[in-house]
Amino acid sequence: MTWPSHGSNPQYLYEAAGLTLPECLIDFSANINPLGPPAVLQKHWGDLFHGIGTYPDPHTASLKVKIANREGIGPERILIGNGGAEIISLLGRLIAEKKVLIVEPAFSEYEKACQVNNCDVSYYQLSDGWEIHLHDLIGKLQGMDAVFLCNPNNPTGMYYGTDIILPLLKACKRENCLLIVDEAFYDFTAEYEPLVPYLKEFPQLILMRSLTKIFAIPGIRLGYLMADRSLVEKLSAYQPHWSVNSVAIQAGEWCLEDEEHISKMIQFIQSERDVLLRFYQEQHFEVSNSAINFYLLRDPQLNDQYPLFEFLLKQGIVPRHTFNFPGLEGRWLRFAIRTSVENRKLMEAMKAWRRLNPSFL
Amino acid sequence: MTWPSHGSNPQYLYEAAGLTLPECLIDFSANINPLGPPAVLQKHWGDLFHGIGTYPDPHTASLKVKIANREGIGPERILIGNGGAEIISLLGRLIAEKKVLIVEPAFSEYEKACQVNNCDVSYYQLSDGWEIHLHDLIGKLQGMDAVFLCNPNNPTGMYYGTDIILPLLKACKRENCLLIVDEAFYDFTAEYEPLVPYLKEFPQLILMRSLTKIFAIPGIRLGYLMADRSLVEKLSAYQPHWSVNSVAIQAGEWCLEDEEHISKMIQFIQSERDVLLRFYQEQHFEVSNSAINFYLLRDPQLNDQYPLFEFLLKQGIVPRHTFNFPGLEGRWLRFAIRTSVENRKLMEAMKAWRRLNPSFL
Repeated sequence: MTWPSHGSNPQYLYEAAGLTLPECLIDFSANINPLGPPAVLQKHWGDLFHGIGTYPDPHTASLKVKIANREGIGPERILIGNGGAEIISLLGRLIAEKKVLIVEPAFSEYEKACQVNNCDVSYYQLSDGWEIHLHDLIGKLQGMDAVFLCNPNNPTGMYYGTDIILPLLKACKRENCLLIVDEAFYDFTAEYEPLVPYLKEFPQLILMRSLTKIFAIPGIRLGYLMADRSLVEKLSAYQPHWSVNSVAIQAGEWCLEDEEHISKMIQFIQSERDVLLRFYQEQHFEVSNSAINFYLLRDPQLNDQYPLFEFLLKQGIVPRHTFNFPGLEGRWLRFAIRTSVENRKLMEAMKAWRRLNPSFL
Repeated sequence: MTWPSHGSNPQYLYEAAGLTLPECLIDFSANINPLGPPAVLQKHWGDLFHGIGTYPDPHTASLKVKIANREGIGPERILIGNGGAEIISLLGRLIAEKKVLIVEPAFSEYEKACQVNNCDVSYYQLSDGWEIHLHDLIGKLQGMDAVFLCNPNNPTGMYYGTDIILPLLKACKRENCLLIVDEAFYDFTAEYEPLVPYLKEFPQLILMRSLTKIFAIPGIRLGYLMADRSLVEKLSAYQPHWSVNSVAIQAGEWCLEDEEHISKMIQFIQSERDVLLRFYQEQHFEVSNSAINFYLLRDPQLNDQYPLFEFLLKQGIVPRHTFNFPGLEGRWLRFAIRTSVENRKLMEAMKAWRRLNPSFL
């Protein structure tokens, strides 16, 4: 059985599980802002039609300037991509055949990009509640050319502050090793400590961002990278011409003006997470210490969570499997935080599972 | 002065020419269907909004099936791309460090993809009215791993039938050399002779297609490739996940149902081309023997066409420069066939030029 490598598109998951696709689904497998896209996008959606008849700006100049101003850096430090996945793919080319360390578990595209580009990959495996042990991690840097760190982490939702990132960055500088921090979910937590101010001092630092999660627009693909100018130039050379479509460029510019949408979402996620965590505690489920809009969960009475996974799928509740996350391999399930109504339906299903599988704790 | 590498986005052209961007422009530099997108797309544009909140199908399964049925091949022979440019970029990786022959002048992305992938590039230069001399071209195949042929040709608009392509394909088979035929503009000519039936017998044959020109949707990026299954699998491995956005996938499916849009457009282009060619003959301009929706033009009294180019730009008429087309290097200008009104405005401007620069022929 081949499990899909990512969440969303549940038809592939049901096919792999050998189950019929129910008519009604709630998809907890993709980590998208549950409030949906900013209102401005729906309001002006019709206008976007008139832009599709011309080629997108291949330099994405206006969106670059908008992000540059927001982050307080020059636009020459920014690369806009056809989603975060394209940026990871371009990074793979940059570090082709080099020695790469991946902090696992993590978004599986890092490893895929490394494999396609014949990198020599090593791993730092998070365990014990997924805390980073700096001494161990830094010990693994010797001889490395690049490190991939997903922060906040996908799939655990753990966020590592500058107390962890700064010493790691300094060690990377000493080793002349790129530190690629994937911040695809940074804007889902109020705890976030900006790393942009360190870009100048540390030309080894590469920050990846996504606009598709926070603005709930994964269908139109939009992400960006911030790094030293020379790295941005190298990566641009690998990028296909007109890679970022004009709908994404214009939507990104509009969405970035709605800062309130982000703060509202952070509050919403926080309050829903509190409700969910309390519930899971009462019902004796184990949950990762997530700072963001998704979390790992397991029924501690099971090692392999497959029975719970299948139970939920049959009811049209779609978790993200963890078979392809090293160190998890099916022993956890990942869930996005969705709307209040949807989270309550999930809790009902979990309660039903617990009634059938009482806890002996 | 650095000229933009492609048409469209005229702001960059005016900047390079040191001219102020006029308020009103007619852009003849991009070769897009002048009838615009099929009506179905505008009608259902609003519905596309509801698809942007989920990830696109990473396998683009339904669009693949639609194209497969239309072409009478299996979907496993098809790769959908984020525009033709992405497909060229993926092909570049496939033939990295190999010996590649490019039939020039041609779309400049082939050469760019070859350079980025350290290919050893040779050229077959079209001249004398851009006819292919089979004996010369086949003579250049020895030791080659791949040939890029743009057919119908961009920038000349010349179309080469199976009397040329088949002997070339057979020679490529003998040399075990890939023949990459870029058919981005195939559907703009009624003369087109399908090459799809040769895919089975010739696993060396790779056909590239674009959906953005014919359906006037370059802003949303959509192209595809047809080839042997094993090649499609190799190319897919290089493609970023979710590379084709969901707006493009759905728009492509809708557009492909409107075959009438294509036949209407062919008729329209043919009749406009006739009018334009008659006019250019009367006014003593030289024009390429184009079969499609754009053509090369020169005032035979000038070698370098820059004075005409600048004259038109100042009036808001935007030709495509040819500085980066080997063998043309500014000695021609390229024009798209646009709407009747727009083509007449172009003819007026050309008449004004001719009044100021009388022909002595």
